[in-house]
Amino acid sequence: MATLTVPQSIPSPTEDSEQLRNAFKGWGTNEGLIISILAHRNAAQRKLIRQTYAETYGEDLLQSLDKELSSDFEGIVLLWTLDPAERDALLANEATRKWTSNNRVILEIACTRSSHDLLLVRQAYHARFKRSLEEDVAAHTTGDFRKLLVPLVSSYRYEGPEVNVTLAKSEAKILHNNISEKAYNHDEIIRILTTRSKTQLNATFNHYNNEFGNAITKDLKADPEDDFLAAVRTTIKCLLTPEKYFEKVLRLAINKLGTDEWALTRVVATRAEVDMKQIKEEYYRRNSVPLDHAIKGDTSGDYEAMLLALIGA
Amino acid sequence: MATLTVPQSIPSPTEDSEQLRNAFKGWGTNEGLIISILAHRNAAQRKLIRQTYAETYGEDLLQSLDKELSSDFEGIVLLWTLDPAERDALLANEATRKWTSNNRVILEIACTRSSHDLLLVRQAYHARFKRSLEEDVAAHTTGDFRKLLVPLVSSYRYEGPEVNVTLAKSEAKILHNNISEKAYNHDEIIRILTTRSKTQLNATFNHYNNEFGNAITKDLKADPEDDFLAAVRTTIKCLLTPEKYFEKVLRLAINKLGTDEWALTRVVATRAEVDMKQIKEEYYRRNSVPLDHAIKGDTSGDYEAMLLALIGA
Repeated sequence: MATLTVPQSIPSPTEDSEQLRNAFKGWGTNEGLIISILAHRNAAQRKLIRQTYAETYGEDLLQSLDKELSSDFEGIVLLWTLDPAERDALLANEATRKWTSNNRVILEIACTRSSHDLLLVRQAYHARFKRSLEEDVAAHTTGDFRKLLVPLVSSYRYEGPEVNVTLAKSEAKILHNNISEKAYNHDEIIRILTTRSKTQLNATFNHYNNEFGNAITKDLKADPEDDFLAAVRTTIKCLLTPEKYFEKVLRLAINKLGTDEWALTRVVATRAEVDMKQIKEEYYRRNSVPLDHAIKGDTSGDYEAMLLALIGA
Repeated sequence: MATLTVPQSIPSPTEDSEQLRNAFKGWGTNEGLIISILAHRNAAQRKLIRQTYAETYGEDLLQSLDKELSSDFEGIVLLWTLDPAERDALLANEATRKWTSNNRVILEIACTRSSHDLLLVRQAYHARFKRSLEEDVAAHTTGDFRKLLVPLVSSYRYEGPEVNVTLAKSEAKILHNNISEKAYNHDEIIRILTTRSKTQLNATFNHYNNEFGNAITKDLKADPEDDFLAAVRTTIKCLLTPEKYFEKVLRLAINKLGTDEWALTRVVATRAEVDMKQIKEEYYRRNSVPLDHAIKGDTSGDYEAMLLALIGA
């Protein structure tokens, strides 16, 4: 569930646009006003505000924000204000251009979004970059990573509740056989992880655990230094327990010597409207500190205020 | 361009449904009436007729047709009446279940449809089969064919007019190097064919021809017995010159000892509303016989009449 809070009665997009324009006017910028509006409008409402603002003032709201704001606060406001599909397209493009084997953003987008939302990301990617997402991912990666990432970003998984138990058993065995032989990049492992529905995969991994005595992610920890093995574990985590995956991204971002603001910004901006409630619960369970306390301790000023508004603190 | 002809003023879906119901009534079926209606309505109109028919008579029009008609005539009427995305989903599923290395239907659907239409096929596949298209293709194929077919059915190619000339040159070279070394299943060949836009690929193949003296499809004819090599050639043909690909399917279907009715039915039903005009021109160019003459010589009765109506004879 989302942590975004939207007032019961909201001003019209015209009023919101005017208020934002006022916030940009004169000496200094009224950051509080910007937060009070944008951090409390859902994606459809923000889209309308952006349209109205562009029609009224002849400038993209994002450009105005870009001119007025700076540093981490600018980062979160811009990322948040974007349409979710466009935002994911930008994040995926950035991750693709700067790709390194320990970058998890492509995996994260491919595996934690719904099938339909991933299609929207691919459409937004066409519109923005004049290429396809899978084309860029394929061109910037090689070897085992390409073999895993390209089908993940191209997937359109079935999302119904059906489970084929016979299939779950036989594919648990296929996975176990290959993992036992350390053939982590085997075609069949890639096929199963990149094409089966999340519900079906959950059944398969349960059978794996029951039949072979370990969670599959545990058996995939053979070599902690192996980046590809880590990517396979991340894939499984993103597909089945996204709240645990995001909790860990937040934990590492916050606990790092010098907070990783971009990771913090990314998770809050992309999940506030989706499942931030579960992520906050998971964070508290795992760290015995509420997420808002942790954020207060690590950030400050308008950036802090925007993060807290989005996580519903 | 399409060969489908729709009258300037058409009856309402209710009138069409009534007429179809009349055609099914009493002794025998009025096949001529069925052809005069269904063979002259576009996809949107057929969809409305199907909806109206189901609401009025409590039965799917396809079920009624299935009960009333038989053999090849039944085949073409059913396939034609289906929604294009649903029809492709059915054809792809049939080809996947009965997959053999010389079956070209999956390739044909993946490479001759627009990016958007291929997404619609994948959505229709979910709705109908409770699995994803790429999931079934991956599960029913192995080795090099899987490596080629899964990304093809998962692709969402960019369709803008942009061409990157530098890229076309460098990728023509990559293709040539691998083809020279007979590494036809090389990751880079698969990557280029499965992710680049059709416009970009066209530029790449032109550079290939200019730089290395042969059309790429010629260099891919090294071993005429190799099914995978044939599949790579078919991929290129379907992507860039679908009218030539379909002309050949029709030619082989008609010239075969005992016509291949299912291939003939498939091409006419899937292309009448798309590019059958170009296919007919290509057929005449290649065979010096108009397609309608060839069809008249090889088929008969209602099946013949339906085919001729759809190809605008």
